Amino acid sequence: MTVPPQDDLSVVALAGGVGGARLVDGLDRTLPPDALTVVVNTGDDFRHWGLHISPDLDTVMYTLAGLSPEDRGWGIDGDTFYALAEAKRRGVDDWFQLGDRDLITHLSRTGALSRGESLTRATAELCKTLGVERPVLPMSDAPRPTSIVTQGGEELVFQEWLVKARAAPPVREVRHQGTDHTTQAVLAALTTADLVVICPSNPYVSIDPILTLSGVSDALRNTTTVAVSPILDGKAVKGPLATMIAEIAGREPSAEAAAMHYEGLLDGYAVHPGDAFDAPFPLLETNILIQSKEDRVVFARELIEFARSLR
Amino acid sequence: MTVPPQDDLSVVALAGGVGGARLVDGLDRTLPPDALTVVVNTGDDFRHWGLHISPDLDTVMYTLAGLSPEDRGWGIDGDTFYALAEAKRRGVDDWFQLGDRDLITHLSRTGALSRGESLTRATAELCKTLGVERPVLPMSDAPRPTSIVTQGGEELVFQEWLVKARAAPPVREVRHQGTDHTTQAVLAALTTADLVVICPSNPYVSIDPILTLSGVSDALRNTTTVAVSPILDGKAVKGPLATMIAEIAGREPSAEAAAMHYEGLLDGYAVHPGDAFDAPFPLLETNILIQSKEDRVVFARELIEFARSLR
Repeated sequence: MTVPPQDDLSVVALAGGVGGARLVDGLDRTLPPDALTVVVNTGDDFRHWGLHISPDLDTVMYTLAGLSPEDRGWGIDGDTFYALAEAKRRGVDDWFQLGDRDLITHLSRTGALSRGESLTRATAELCKTLGVERPVLPMSDAPRPTSIVTQGGEELVFQEWLVKARAAPPVREVRHQGTDHTTQAVLAALTTADLVVICPSNPYVSIDPILTLSGVSDALRNTTTVAVSPILDGKAVKGPLATMIAEIAGREPSAEAAAMHYEGLLDGYAVHPGDAFDAPFPLLETNILIQSKEDRVVFARELIEFARSLR
Repeated sequence: MTVPPQDDLSVVALAGGVGGARLVDGLDRTLPPDALTVVVNTGDDFRHWGLHISPDLDTVMYTLAGLSPEDRGWGIDGDTFYALAEAKRRGVDDWFQLGDRDLITHLSRTGALSRGESLTRATAELCKTLGVERPVLPMSDAPRPTSIVTQGGEELVFQEWLVKARAAPPVREVRHQGTDHTTQAVLAALTTADLVVICPSNPYVSIDPILTLSGVSDALRNTTTVAVSPILDGKAVKGPLATMIAEIAGREPSAEAAAMHYEGLLDGYAVHPGDAFDAPFPLLETNILIQSKEDRVVFARELIEFARSLR
């Protein structure tokens, strides 16, 4: 059941990987056609096996296409790994897991980029072949790589830190390299949005890359913006966020600490039961653990109702 | 059992796809280390899924690595095709069969070329990871695409004619595009060779691309050169050669017609029993059908003995 058309909000979701994709999936099942645009972090993009890999775009696309596995946050459900096994056998880099079916995504994208197409256009083509109808926009067509400066002073490309180094080296700083240009498509979506939803993705490495782009934070200040806490009961559902909050901000990881990171941008904030705090904006205190498809839809509806009450 | 070192010939084999790879395999099992260099046609090279595909290099490498299937002339034995099935599902070009394990070859090669490495160097690296110790040299580091002009006047890239159009359109002419530069490695191998073996590959589309390169035919005239007939009893073992001889040369396909194509280059020629003709050079009349590994070795030994008798 979708929200009735008379209540038609134009929603833009800012998303990173798994947590973002799950909320986007809930919003997709809740909002009418043309009411949702997804802007996705591309700070994690990197080249591997000569291919342009966009981990967060893929997670969002696969989730919307119904292809994501239940038990892990990447790749295609039921995919095989024969190419990867061959790479391993030959001593080719095998630290990043690419499935055989998944490879078609990276090959298609890399081919399109090498023909001079933009990442925005390559993503639209991929969405079409995957049957994804919602607009999924990369945050930028230009490289904007996220890097991690460790407390030991080493600078690692994000995926190398996250996957190859298993997010073990303590973080001193997150850097955003490249240009700060977003795209016309992203700016158009943000400036016409009635509501921007900051998904429960890692603020430092999934959302900040989007927010640092020229014009994005200003657009958020000019519309209703709500975020969903990426921290539940002091812990991240997945990934290294809790440790990063301690290491970078010097704070105990909490829903409040994550909200403070978005200071000045938020008109509302959703937290898990028991995580409420004394906030300068309204809080929605409800189940934000949205692993199942059912929970995603229930929460997305609550979030939209909450956001509507703020306008 | 290898030929004793005192008989150490320095042999260069010019090879195309399947037939070439089988003779190369026999020579590999017959000749001592450092006595064999393989120069491979790259006129069939093309881009597919954004990857640089070198069909003949792959067939030769896989055959030398013991990875070739018994029942087809391309790819890796026991390979799976999950990526290809996904391509088909998504409407991505699926006319050229790429296996999941095979993909690692094309990914590695394309990656190396995009890092600015030569095809010669990329091939050497692939050979290393595949455990192939014989030098396998691409005929050129520069593109030299073979195209087929059909009798209808259409010009098709070779693999599109061979695979996509199933070699059906009658051939008016074979064209060799690009530059006629070979490599220093090929010229060095040819000028120091005691013997050049023209493998039983298609003269028009597998061997001619090599012979048209500057300096190659001259090098062959300055050393002992033997060819193995690609026609047995009026038929090609595999591929479109018999039809091409009729269409291009206007002759009945025969071992003699194939030899006439190499006019002025040959010091000897191996034909199948019953295929002998009145030739201006010595003939070796023996079983040249070398599908099994045993037959490959028996024939390679006979060929080396025959060539030694010509010097």
